[in-house]
Amino acid sequence: MERLNDEYYMQLALNMAEAATGQTGINPVVGCIVVKDGRIVGMGAHLRRGEGHAEVLALNMAGEHARGATAYVTLEPCSHYGRTPPCCERLIEEGVARVVVAAVDPNPLVAGRGIARLKEAGIEVETGVLEEKAVLQNEAFNKFIRTGKPFVTLKTALSLDGRIATRTGHSRWITGEQSREAVHTLRHRHVGIMVGVETVLADDPELTTRLRVPGLNPVRIVVDSKLRIAESARALNDSAPTIILTTVRTDEEKATRLQALGAEVLRVGSGDRVDLIEAMIELGKREIGSILLEGGGVLNGAMLQAGLIDKIMLFYAPIIVGGEGSPSAFAFKGPEFMSDALRLENVTMQSSGQDWCIAGYPVRPVAGELEGSGTADYLGKES
Amino acid sequence: MERLNDEYYMQLALNMAEAATGQTGINPVVGCIVVKDGRIVGMGAHLRRGEGHAEVLALNMAGEHARGATAYVTLEPCSHYGRTPPCCERLIEEGVARVVVAAVDPNPLVAGRGIARLKEAGIEVETGVLEEKAVLQNEAFNKFIRTGKPFVTLKTALSLDGRIATRTGHSRWITGEQSREAVHTLRHRHVGIMVGVETVLADDPELTTRLRVPGLNPVRIVVDSKLRIAESARALNDSAPTIILTTVRTDEEKATRLQALGAEVLRVGSGDRVDLIEAMIELGKREIGSILLEGGGVLNGAMLQAGLIDKIMLFYAPIIVGGEGSPSAFAFKGPEFMSDALRLENVTMQSSGQDWCIAGYPVRPVAGELEGSGTADYLGKES
Repeated sequence: MERLNDEYYMQLALNMAEAATGQTGINPVVGCIVVKDGRIVGMGAHLRRGEGHAEVLALNMAGEHARGATAYVTLEPCSHYGRTPPCCERLIEEGVARVVVAAVDPNPLVAGRGIARLKEAGIEVETGVLEEKAVLQNEAFNKFIRTGKPFVTLKTALSLDGRIATRTGHSRWITGEQSREAVHTLRHRHVGIMVGVETVLADDPELTTRLRVPGLNPVRIVVDSKLRIAESARALNDSAPTIILTTVRTDEEKATRLQALGAEVLRVGSGDRVDLIEAMIELGKREIGSILLEGGGVLNGAMLQAGLIDKIMLFYAPIIVGGEGSPSAFAFKGPEFMSDALRLENVTMQSSGQDWCIAGYPVRPVAGELEGSGTADYLGKES
Repeated sequence: MERLNDEYYMQLALNMAEAATGQTGINPVVGCIVVKDGRIVGMGAHLRRGEGHAEVLALNMAGEHARGATAYVTLEPCSHYGRTPPCCERLIEEGVARVVVAAVDPNPLVAGRGIARLKEAGIEVETGVLEEKAVLQNEAFNKFIRTGKPFVTLKTALSLDGRIATRTGHSRWITGEQSREAVHTLRHRHVGIMVGVETVLADDPELTTRLRVPGLNPVRIVVDSKLRIAESARALNDSAPTIILTTVRTDEEKATRLQALGAEVLRVGSGDRVDLIEAMIELGKREIGSILLEGGGVLNGAMLQAGLIDKIMLFYAPIIVGGEGSPSAFAFKGPEFMSDALRLENVTMQSSGQDWCIAGYPVRPVAGELEGSGTADYLGKES
């Protein structure tokens, strides 16, 4: 049943922010609703990095009705000068009487300053309304802004017996059309997409977002320790930028030719294999705040073992593949004891056409630490 | 799973419209999303009668990005001059390339003209996307605009054995706090609230919207055949307008005193009882497009028998009351045979705290006909 209360308005603000996921780059998604005397008078969501914040768009719509109104914001309003002036000052200037905030700023160096500024100006501030949903909605941003490293979502389609191909290597398609549409939507919603060179050599994928409506293409990231990618690979076309991760040992000339095609060749690792941990740091510096990993079993296993996976989304088709040696979704040396198996927490399950998507978060031995800080303009690191 | 497609954007537009229910008076709720190159560039919802339509607010936000964009609108854009200029012309002027519409205009005299105008201007138009949800969202408007009569929702709280009070008449409270919050939200979402004078005499209710956030008060309608309402009744205070329905036979002096208190005394019916059918026609003329009926058993029964109930919402508390003669939610002479009992269709059930809300639509022998036309400015009947 609909109940008109703070949560009613905040849920709408969250819906508006959620729909903008993927179009704000490394900025968070934020929604704002302005309410005056029992009536919505303004609505807005942050739509593009460097352009208007949610509060500003909603206040623009509200006009003079903002005076004495309540503003519902999914994320603590900013209090600093970034690419746009601080939203706090605009809220104060417009005479807003009450601000309801879902989540405080996730950056511990900034958190609470916006709220303090509003209170200082005599505005009533309430926090924590639908906070959990708001935090979840910006899970990628929240990690990036704290650590400077991308939030990595491992996605794979697999059979009920954990296979990603038959014993002959055939794999198209495992899941149904709805799941494939959901996966392309995930591409739209991530800044980067990452695969191994084996996938590029085998399938020559373009790695773009293809839907019945236009979507945004993620930056393509190919893990290619030996620089084996073909110069004719579709993943190198001009649909989106491409970053090739390789080691310091690979051929300079091949690298130069790939660069001439527009790709960035990023050398991380002095040994035989790409150093995935260093790779994440470098990708973070390039403002790749979120990555959808569509690896094969080997890359998936390596990323998991390196502790670089934040979230796992498994699309199960209702099929049993069997077959000796059929490739598995996760190829790595597992633990000796069942009790040491990688465990997921906060697991959810949703139907997806005839398939089922099980999503969860790997339990880590140690919680992520503050190792650096991101560069999202929402925090004013850029102007 | 989220899938980026026409429905993805239309659902957001529907959410925005839904949240504005109750604040547009007899106008429909409408939401609009403008999308360009895989990116939302504008969002809006109709927020108040006589003010900007959803398309205009969304186009204002989109600015120059509207050129070549797709606009998702929950209701066919208007093509006439009403209180505001026609949205069709604005969409054409801004160079929108494609318009996706959920529901066509429900007024058969107008339906399709907006779409035709857009097509004429070379805009690609698609209709029927999430149409069912859009039609349901404006069920009150849809009836009003076709018939000029209010859409009446009968709401009652009752025990599992169908009682609205104990044998001593005690009734506070049957349902829990969440259900009461939902009911006050229903008041916010309706133009009028209707009760019998017995309720006014027994409980002296104010009939306003009381929530933890401000809500809008409906126009109070009291069915009072004998004009027995006390001049001190709280339902006559200045929180909201009040209309007292009575017959031509009642005391002129009492009527004059009630009018002096700000109430309208509306005489419908020449016999002993208020003519409820005529009352609905008169209320429609006064732009009461939707009514929440919070009657006792007798008024509920009379309205049902007169065929004036469009929707029934029953809030069941998990209690059994029993008791000889405990008042029932519906007091009327029922049919002889079970097969002639009033039947509901399109029944839904939702939990509401510890209670359950069962909602449905009475099956009518004859479908509603076009008996007149409404006056919503969305259709340009007013300027």
